[in-house]
Amino acid sequence: MRIGRIAHPQGVAFVSIEGEPDTDQVAVEIAEHPFGEPTYTGRRWPLADVRVLAPILPSKVVCIGKNYADHAREMGGEPPVDPVIFMKPSTSVIGPGASIRLPADSTQVDFEGELAAVVGAPCRDVSPAKAKDVLLGYTIANDVTARDQQKADGQWTRAKGHDTFCPLGPWIDTTVDPADLRIRTELDGAVRQDSTTANLLHDVPALVAWISRVMTLLPGDVILTGTPAGVGPMVAGQTVAITVQGLGTLRNPVVQR
Amino acid sequence: MRIGRIAHPQGVAFVSIEGEPDTDQVAVEIAEHPFGEPTYTGRRWPLADVRVLAPILPSKVVCIGKNYADHAREMGGEPPVDPVIFMKPSTSVIGPGASIRLPADSTQVDFEGELAAVVGAPCRDVSPAKAKDVLLGYTIANDVTARDQQKADGQWTRAKGHDTFCPLGPWIDTTVDPADLRIRTELDGAVRQDSTTANLLHDVPALVAWISRVMTLLPGDVILTGTPAGVGPMVAGQTVAITVQGLGTLRNPVVQR
Repeated sequence: MRIGRIAHPQGVAFVSIEGEPDTDQVAVEIAEHPFGEPTYTGRRWPLADVRVLAPILPSKVVCIGKNYADHAREMGGEPPVDPVIFMKPSTSVIGPGASIRLPADSTQVDFEGELAAVVGAPCRDVSPAKAKDVLLGYTIANDVTARDQQKADGQWTRAKGHDTFCPLGPWIDTTVDPADLRIRTELDGAVRQDSTTANLLHDVPALVAWISRVMTLLPGDVILTGTPAGVGPMVAGQTVAITVQGLGTLRNPVVQR
Repeated sequence: MRIGRIAHPQGVAFVSIEGEPDTDQVAVEIAEHPFGEPTYTGRRWPLADVRVLAPILPSKVVCIGKNYADHAREMGGEPPVDPVIFMKPSTSVIGPGASIRLPADSTQVDFEGELAAVVGAPCRDVSPAKAKDVLLGYTIANDVTARDQQKADGQWTRAKGHDTFCPLGPWIDTTVDPADLRIRTELDGAVRQDSTTANLLHDVPALVAWISRVMTLLPGDVILTGTPAGVGPMVAGQTVAITVQGLGTLRNPVVQR
């Protein structure tokens, strides 16, 4: 099942997205929320006729630093032994097609394409073996980063916390296996990142276990699993597109704020 | 006005807390939420008969590192020129009297007494002169920190993000002037921190301006303004009490998880 969230003529709704990408997909309205067994209102729209929003409004976005060896090295170091976690504020989330806005006080804003896991049930102290049971599914994220501010502050919250710095989408796939998905980032059509989630140093079950040993995870919380090598700057007028095998493409234009 | 949140026999409510601390205070139930001009249901309870909860459930908790020079020095460095921001997850928030739970995987968990500002209106790009207009009021926070994990990770999210690591309360005072409030932390009655918010390197208006230049702030969001010198470890069985002039005392027992 593919769970999305849309703005339709009468309001905002979770939907089941039916049909394959690049065909005439349809958004089928879910009553209330997509956790548990969803029920349907009977309303549906061609996906092309509605605005697709971020598929979830998370209570928190927990991210992992340096979780691909090649990216850790391009940042000038070896990867840490244990996962390093940080957070992006929920106010940084935008949906597919929405503009990434470059802050006036940064000279370098980078894309970072990532696989994201979406939590489906309140949980803590989850074992790796049980991680699958607490996840709703997977989507794509762009961990947009003001690289100069990241270096200046030491802590990464400002650099990664600007409004619009967490594009999510286009939908949450509830059936994909995250173990070996090709992940590719294109900037204006040129491939800049090309890897697979098989290269994650700490895989999704390990991350769910690590994070939930610290903090309770709530339905809708999002885990960004880290980015592979190839990160680089975006400038106004460009478009960044992240494709994860089985999850579609998350595409966002870049504008000056 | 003092805004609190309580569990009463019929449920949970925001309340206006009337009367002075150490007298027979009364909780007067607010209909719905405390933003804007509150209305009242007519129900009231002696404060001693209800359970006082964290006065707000924030969508985000934004914190400032090394914002008192004496604390920056005791941590082994000079304070940064600009404010350094980080976040605690909303799942770390607990109320007055609730137990701080020490994680099994940390060998040193420290208290950090702080003045906290509570946002009252959606805002961004707020000038220091307008900061007062977007704040609901002030409360007390304990920025509980697993010091060993803070040093191990570099990023502070895990160290400061454990469940129960953000005690808030006892209430939000909407009238206090934050410019020069005595702040004092006692561990089992022994004074460990004793300073004034006049020593903040970046004052509350400057912090609201700095943070809101990065991210939209929402009603109920909480800003922890930093801790003065004197931080230190707590062990199970102890009680930590933080008193800020005009804001009462935030008291929490410490237990092993």
